[in-house]
Amino acid sequence: MKIPVLEIFGPTFQGEGAVIGQKTMFVRTAGCDYQCSWCDSKFTWDGSQKENIRMMTAEDIFASLDALAKDNYSHVTISGGNPLLLKNLSDFVEKAKSKNIRLAVETQGTMYQDWLQMIDDVTISPKPPSSGMVTDYGKLEHIFAKLDESGTSYNLKVVIFDDADFEYAADLHRKYRDVAFYLQVGNPYLDGESVDNHTEKLLSRYEDLVDRTMNDKRMNEVRVLPQLHTLLWSNKQGV
Amino acid sequence: MKIPVLEIFGPTFQGEGAVIGQKTMFVRTAGCDYQCSWCDSKFTWDGSQKENIRMMTAEDIFASLDALAKDNYSHVTISGGNPLLLKNLSDFVEKAKSKNIRLAVETQGTMYQDWLQMIDDVTISPKPPSSGMVTDYGKLEHIFAKLDESGTSYNLKVVIFDDADFEYAADLHRKYRDVAFYLQVGNPYLDGESVDNHTEKLLSRYEDLVDRTMNDKRMNEVRVLPQLHTLLWSNKQGV
Repeated sequence: MKIPVLEIFGPTFQGEGAVIGQKTMFVRTAGCDYQCSWCDSKFTWDGSQKENIRMMTAEDIFASLDALAKDNYSHVTISGGNPLLLKNLSDFVEKAKSKNIRLAVETQGTMYQDWLQMIDDVTISPKPPSSGMVTDYGKLEHIFAKLDESGTSYNLKVVIFDDADFEYAADLHRKYRDVAFYLQVGNPYLDGESVDNHTEKLLSRYEDLVDRTMNDKRMNEVRVLPQLHTLLWSNKQGV
Repeated sequence: MKIPVLEIFGPTFQGEGAVIGQKTMFVRTAGCDYQCSWCDSKFTWDGSQKENIRMMTAEDIFASLDALAKDNYSHVTISGGNPLLLKNLSDFVEKAKSKNIRLAVETQGTMYQDWLQMIDDVTISPKPPSSGMVTDYGKLEHIFAKLDESGTSYNLKVVIFDDADFEYAADLHRKYRDVAFYLQVGNPYLDGESVDNHTEKLLSRYEDLVDRTMNDKRMNEVRVLPQLHTLLWSNKQGV
């Protein structure tokens, strides 16, 4: 039961979303059913790092994690691509739970697998119009129903690049009022590992998103966050 | 039943801790039983803004909040000083709950009041050695016991300036293993509203704290965060 893995790295910290700041390891799976225009991990689906994909068992993955950080982690983030493409991730998830490791997953909300019920920190991040993708609300609600049924907690996160994205987020938040809701400022500066004045540019965009959120009565319950890893390390891969 | 208030402002966002990013209003009470060397709100206890203290009822406070942001908030952060000095805050807390407003409080863990059980987001932030204050673990555990007894959830946060602070945090985390634990990078640059290259200096300190946490097996479960408001706005008061 092998799964396609593109990167395993850490220990580092989760720079965004509901568990922002959490010390964690990352396991990045290959393959995605989306092709977002501004994807910051295009190498997971555009074929550019195809030769780096390793087919790994749960044991292989833990061997890699332990080689990097034996005894120095208790939280693993499964990222993609879209990890929900992989039914076979159940082996890894079960093994992690048996080791008392907390797990986080982020997915766009297009696919469901039963192992999602074992994930501690589930982030569903539907993609706004600027991505070029179109949300299938039927699929999204199927996932919510499955998670609700099993008492699995989850949150919604939307990345914001422009006005249309903000309106999309407001609409999504209105529809699913009881789900914890995160706004994240988009990073449009993806040209290279290091971008001139990247931190300054991102903080300026973050401030705009903060201002907009503070002035919008539809957004009273939300949390609005930057990507901390990008503030520290720009677009560097593997940190 | 009036309480001493120094600032009411918002809507803005919570820049730190467990509810980082949350859209919120701030109510800052006057008075503290601590005098931390690096306190970023010394004006709440050093007498320098004594003439700005307003004695306010719960109704007065809501009138101020609504004047600033009618219908544009559903979360209020009670900050200080140490709000736990104020038994009479119960009026405000009850009124807020009757309005379905979520409440957050941060306190150093020296005092308890029954209204703390009605707070949604309780942060206990004992002060490390660099503050010049000494933790009374008996008082801290009394508060934990009261909160546990009533099923109130809470988290621990420690601000880190130096090695001794980090060791203090590691010890605290070891003692109270089941309590969600946050490390926050200290801001030693408090000289004036705006500090030269403040963001850069703070991010560099944050990166150091991240590195140290990533390399320390005692810290596998923790979350490590900066103060986002300071990254955006330096030391400006009232934002």
